[in-house]
Amino acid sequence: MAAGSTHQVFTAAVLRAGCVSLFEKIGVPREDGELFTDACLDSELRGEQSHGVRLVPVHLARIKAGSIRPKPKVTVLLDRGACALFDAHLSLGQVVAARAMRLAIAKAREFGVGIVGVRNANAYASAKYYPLMAAKAGMIGINRGNTCPMMPPHGGATPIVGNNPISIAAPAGEEHPFVLDMACATAKEKIRQAAAEGRPIPPEWALGHDGTPTTDAEEALATGVLLPFGGYKAFGLAASHEVLTSVLFGGHLFCAGGGAFRPYETPYNGSQFFQAIDVEWFMPLPEFRERMDRMIRAIKAARLRPGVERVYVPGERGFLEMERRRREGIPVHSGTIADLRRWAGELGTEPIGGPASAT
Amino acid sequence: MAAGSTHQVFTAAVLRAGCVSLFEKIGVPREDGELFTDACLDSELRGEQSHGVRLVPVHLARIKAGSIRPKPKVTVLLDRGACALFDAHLSLGQVVAARAMRLAIAKAREFGVGIVGVRNANAYASAKYYPLMAAKAGMIGINRGNTCPMMPPHGGATPIVGNNPISIAAPAGEEHPFVLDMACATAKEKIRQAAAEGRPIPPEWALGHDGTPTTDAEEALATGVLLPFGGYKAFGLAASHEVLTSVLFGGHLFCAGGGAFRPYETPYNGSQFFQAIDVEWFMPLPEFRERMDRMIRAIKAARLRPGVERVYVPGERGFLEMERRRREGIPVHSGTIADLRRWAGELGTEPIGGPASAT
Repeated sequence: MAAGSTHQVFTAAVLRAGCVSLFEKIGVPREDGELFTDACLDSELRGEQSHGVRLVPVHLARIKAGSIRPKPKVTVLLDRGACALFDAHLSLGQVVAARAMRLAIAKAREFGVGIVGVRNANAYASAKYYPLMAAKAGMIGINRGNTCPMMPPHGGATPIVGNNPISIAAPAGEEHPFVLDMACATAKEKIRQAAAEGRPIPPEWALGHDGTPTTDAEEALATGVLLPFGGYKAFGLAASHEVLTSVLFGGHLFCAGGGAFRPYETPYNGSQFFQAIDVEWFMPLPEFRERMDRMIRAIKAARLRPGVERVYVPGERGFLEMERRRREGIPVHSGTIADLRRWAGELGTEPIGGPASAT
Repeated sequence: MAAGSTHQVFTAAVLRAGCVSLFEKIGVPREDGELFTDACLDSELRGEQSHGVRLVPVHLARIKAGSIRPKPKVTVLLDRGACALFDAHLSLGQVVAARAMRLAIAKAREFGVGIVGVRNANAYASAKYYPLMAAKAGMIGINRGNTCPMMPPHGGATPIVGNNPISIAAPAGEEHPFVLDMACATAKEKIRQAAAEGRPIPPEWALGHDGTPTTDAEEALATGVLLPFGGYKAFGLAASHEVLTSVLFGGHLFCAGGGAFRPYETPYNGSQFFQAIDVEWFMPLPEFRERMDRMIRAIKAARLRPGVERVYVPGERGFLEMERRRREGIPVHSGTIADLRRWAGELGTEPIGGPASAT
């Protein structure tokens, strides 16, 4: 990527040092800032900028505005048998989510399965980070979260339920781990791309101001009323995730309502579900890994549709991109770098260094 | 429904007596035949004929052909902590599924959550029957199953993964229980309807003989290659259900392959996942029920799209239909009644009585 483009390329190490010192300076314990940054860098390496270091300035702004607690405060409301429940008191979402998944993993070692719920949580992007912790521990990890309202029910025109993502990860053997990570709405990112390129969107993606489907990407972004992917089924799935998060864990239903883009001072009010299942209770881990490889290879061996070069299994593209970006560096949008440098100026930290490979 | 139509109307009690005696005569223990029949009648009452008593002659034929074991044989391979694993040895699917969910419920009482896996299972339609057992016990119930291959991966042309359904149920208070029950493919039933009416189908539903999307409903039924609803996301979901059933429980991957419509003598080779979460570990059940009511009412209070009369939450239509059919009787297709009467003749049982209300 050439210098002068709208992106600059950095190594993960350079980005990490810069981001971690920003968090430390604003009052986040060093290890928590490291965890947050590592979650962002994991997304960057997988090619998912929307969950990458662009979240760092957003979270610094939310900490400054008081809607995110920089020093974690977690009340353990339940810790018995295979279950636990945390009140996160709006601590940094990634920090509490990682703690919740660690406890779910420990419970799965003891009981075969563990569930940990979190209420009064902040966003924890990316959702797949925590199930992947379980996969690294030789377990299947599952997580669900609720988000701010953006989808109407089937036949409805007002957004009630969030895009409530689910992520499921499992370890494989020679193949990459299996990683499902999906929201229940049409991806807003795709609508943004269409708007940027002046393209219309399919009528199945969003509703316009009059409550009927729109093909105008700008109008879709203005209403923020996204439709569930594939019709009513994905709405039902999102609603089931609401049951398994806010309803079950005593959190705010639908993140207490409000729009999808809330001001920095408005708390997120989320609820999250973390589950680990210890594979070794059911079979030796090497056998499971071999079975995962067989499943993955069977999927990849499907006859291809005309014009298609290969089949990817869920998560595979991200792992391939990760290998490439570890070698070639991470392209970061210049606007994000400018934001990070502004924060370095405000907090008095070393600004993120010049492009590592942009010459 | 008038006499002379292609349907005849019966009470649930009349259908039950006829079906139970057929199962008893072919060698199924009486309580198992009752359970199978009750699961079918539950579907009939909810208006889902595809999972109703039409399955009785199909299962009698499979028992006769040897692919379903009439007297259950279940080997408990694991029963420790919050987990258990059954080998069902191709016993009647509904009987083993109900036993698995009962054990998951008992484990959830003890540990907060319980998971029971089944391998070498038969089909257990309808999937929602078992999560609803958990809901009746004041718990959240979850189940996943794998099925015979019918969906290609994104970009693929050959079916690899089944439509692998998921069902999630939770109790409410004054509202009906929440019941999600969805397969990951476009419903074959809708394609059958289109074929019967000579209508084309949308290109997102199925692939034709050349591996590209078809709008010909007959061709779609001939290939049996269904597409995941809403594109690649639902394929990923189906694959995650494969991980959480056949891979984890040591069952046959993809039900050992083969076509979606297998001969009566070919075993089903399925794997199934049953989970219960005891609500009372997280909050008093009455509080949970009240929270469920709040969630359901918020969804139903959405502003309606033009031309829409009301919003339904997942499962609600089935409960409303159930109230109606309990009063008015169950319309059963005349072909199904003829099949049942043929079996009564073969096995020497009393044929199902004349129409109860078809005058």
